[in-house]
Amino acid sequence: MAEPPPLLVGLGHVIRQARGDSRISQEELGLRTGVHRNYIGGIERGERNPSITTVAILAEELGVKMSEIFARTGN
Amino acid sequence: MAEPPPLLVGLGHVIRQARGDSRISQEELGLRTGVHRNYIGGIERGERNPSITTVAILAEELGVKMSEIFARTGN
Repeated sequence: MAEPPPLLVGLGHVIRQARGDSRISQEELGLRTGVHRNYIGGIERGERNPSITTVAILAEELGVKMSEIFARTGN
Repeated sequence: MAEPPPLLVGLGHVIRQARGDSRISQEELGLRTGVHRNYIGGIERGERNPSITTVAILAEELGVKMSEIFARTGN
């Protein structure tokens, strides 16, 4: 597979960090949001290009704003 | 079709505003980005749920940051 775009790698890092701050597993985040844990893993590795609403659902559960996520990726 | 989610309606408004500020048409924005003009129209109406990279491509061409877009939608 081609190298993931830096934006998606950055997004994944921020999501993983926020999930760690919330002290929940990918599985637990998946159960709470309805996003499959494997898909969450792919997002965290920068291998997935999620939709706006999927990011919003994860962001809400993790208590982080969308604007903050992209401020943290530098986008 | 169901009512579009407020996040997507807000995103569409911000994209339309930024495109207006750039004084370019949906067609011109489409030519510059490779995103089809009809899809851009759907995003601006809140009827589409674009991927992160699609929003990033439009944002870059319009000279607006992703963090700024979502700060403006209140997300």
